[in-house]
Amino acid sequence: MSLPVTYADVVGAIQTLQGVAHRTPVMTSRLVNARTGCEVFFKCENFQRTGSFKFRGAYNAIAHLSSDQRLRGVLTYSSGNHAQAIALAGQLLNIATTIVMPNDAPAVKQAATQAYGAEVILYDRAEITREQLASQLAAERGSTVIPPYNHPQVIAGQGTTAHELLEDVGNLDYLLVCCGGGGLLSGCAIAAHALSPACKVIGVEPAAGDDAARSFKSKTLQTVSNPDTIADGARTPSLGDLTFPLVLHYVHDILTVTDEQLLRGLFYLWERMKLVVEPTGALAATALLEGGAIAPGARVGIILSGGNVDLQQLKHWC
Amino acid sequence: MSLPVTYADVVGAIQTLQGVAHRTPVMTSRLVNARTGCEVFFKCENFQRTGSFKFRGAYNAIAHLSSDQRLRGVLTYSSGNHAQAIALAGQLLNIATTIVMPNDAPAVKQAATQAYGAEVILYDRAEITREQLASQLAAERGSTVIPPYNHPQVIAGQGTTAHELLEDVGNLDYLLVCCGGGGLLSGCAIAAHALSPACKVIGVEPAAGDDAARSFKSKTLQTVSNPDTIADGARTPSLGDLTFPLVLHYVHDILTVTDEQLLRGLFYLWERMKLVVEPTGALAATALLEGGAIAPGARVGIILSGGNVDLQQLKHWC
Repeated sequence: MSLPVTYADVVGAIQTLQGVAHRTPVMTSRLVNARTGCEVFFKCENFQRTGSFKFRGAYNAIAHLSSDQRLRGVLTYSSGNHAQAIALAGQLLNIATTIVMPNDAPAVKQAATQAYGAEVILYDRAEITREQLASQLAAERGSTVIPPYNHPQVIAGQGTTAHELLEDVGNLDYLLVCCGGGGLLSGCAIAAHALSPACKVIGVEPAAGDDAARSFKSKTLQTVSNPDTIADGARTPSLGDLTFPLVLHYVHDILTVTDEQLLRGLFYLWERMKLVVEPTGALAATALLEGGAIAPGARVGIILSGGNVDLQQLKHWC
Repeated sequence: MSLPVTYADVVGAIQTLQGVAHRTPVMTSRLVNARTGCEVFFKCENFQRTGSFKFRGAYNAIAHLSSDQRLRGVLTYSSGNHAQAIALAGQLLNIATTIVMPNDAPAVKQAATQAYGAEVILYDRAEITREQLASQLAAERGSTVIPPYNHPQVIAGQGTTAHELLEDVGNLDYLLVCCGGGGLLSGCAIAAHALSPACKVIGVEPAAGDDAARSFKSKTLQTVSNPDTIADGARTPSLGDLTFPLVLHYVHDILTVTDEQLLRGLFYLWERMKLVVEPTGALAATALLEGGAIAPGARVGIILSGGNVDLQQLKHWC
């Protein structure tokens, strides 16, 4: 079977992102090592430009467009980290960007996206889906749609996260990665397979939105509808037709954590490691910290995928 | 005039702390540079062991004790970061530590200090001062009191913070440092004077507890009583008889920020830089971010002094 993204694509993305994306730091913690009995390495994508790994895939995808496509601009749908990532990538490459967002998206997210120079178009969830509106607008304008995860160059870009981590720390026994649509997970799994072949790559998703875990076990694509979880980056309805075969091929297992566990993991990262991580960004760390997932003695990589939190929300979580 | 701490003491502390204290990372931010027009370097002592710079001075002071003093143990008074710092330093050097805390100190702080193996003795603020109780206990036990800031080896230890920063980034035009009792400020000013002689070192304290600013301007030691500020690490009544002459000799100015400004600075560090910093730890950054303190074009060092926050408190600040 031919897979839609290869290690060569990840290597290409590294070249493309050179000097543009941050090579984010890898942090360690005596406390975490003592608590888990493992040697743990945290890849801090909360320090990435726009506050999440999404910048890697967005920039890599836009950089691959032809000059004709660049002239006609880029369009995407997201109210989250992918929106800001596309907006900044467009700004840096001097390409017009349009972001389709629901009209109930937080004003701060609209403002952050507009601050990077993107045009924001609001829609009513009750009237149209974001995919419908996006393809309609793209057809009218001739612009290119870059979806949040189901896109080869997006996946390859996200894979550079694990590539950097493994270059910095060497072989790992496990790599834990959060999973929404599977772009980060599949990209990182491709990189790990090439650089540290014995490393088991494990996806972690919220228990309320366990479509990827079910898809992985049944080997048939499963969906979930608007799951109730604080991990807003993992509220995606399903894996994509590109990410799913990659996950099946390269990923060892997919675990879930409840929101109650996730909040404990999140607060641990904030209070003990002094890192502002968003709920989705704490999924992988939580699977480790809550115990049971990894036996002591292992070398473990954890992707902290992002840190975009509105502190006003925190009040509701304490 | 002979000053109580010299650059040689700071160099000695570097040797003592080698392999024991973390060499904490220096972080930069395009956003902050764009906002201020300066090139800004943040020294992240929130990532230091026990979550603040206090570990440097505590360890350095304890490491200088004679073998006889070590046998009889160490005692201090603090409900904050110095307590945990002394407790961990004692644990690492196998020396008994006793911490005198008010009986209304948060249970989490008592527990954190006990977790490092310290004995915690509670007292009633209405009945006795912490200094009285500490000297009484020390006399009974023959143990050595290591106060939070007014101690030569504590000051020298804190100075290693600026020493590392200047080694990492080279000459600076300004170095902004929070100021409570003046241990960190005076230690850092000694290091800056030696390594980057043209660097202006500026202390920053809360407006409600502006005793150091008044002392600096009047050249006479001023005090403040239990000031109302969220910067709990800077609620100290005055500079000490060791730190005051050092501040007068080496420091260029002392500025103040209001709690309203401090909260804006704190939230900026959390939301934009993804760094968990405690209010006192955000004083120096706030003086820069709120504008007016430093003209554009300068190379500026900022000490983020600590990150110990109980997230439950955050609810009251949002």
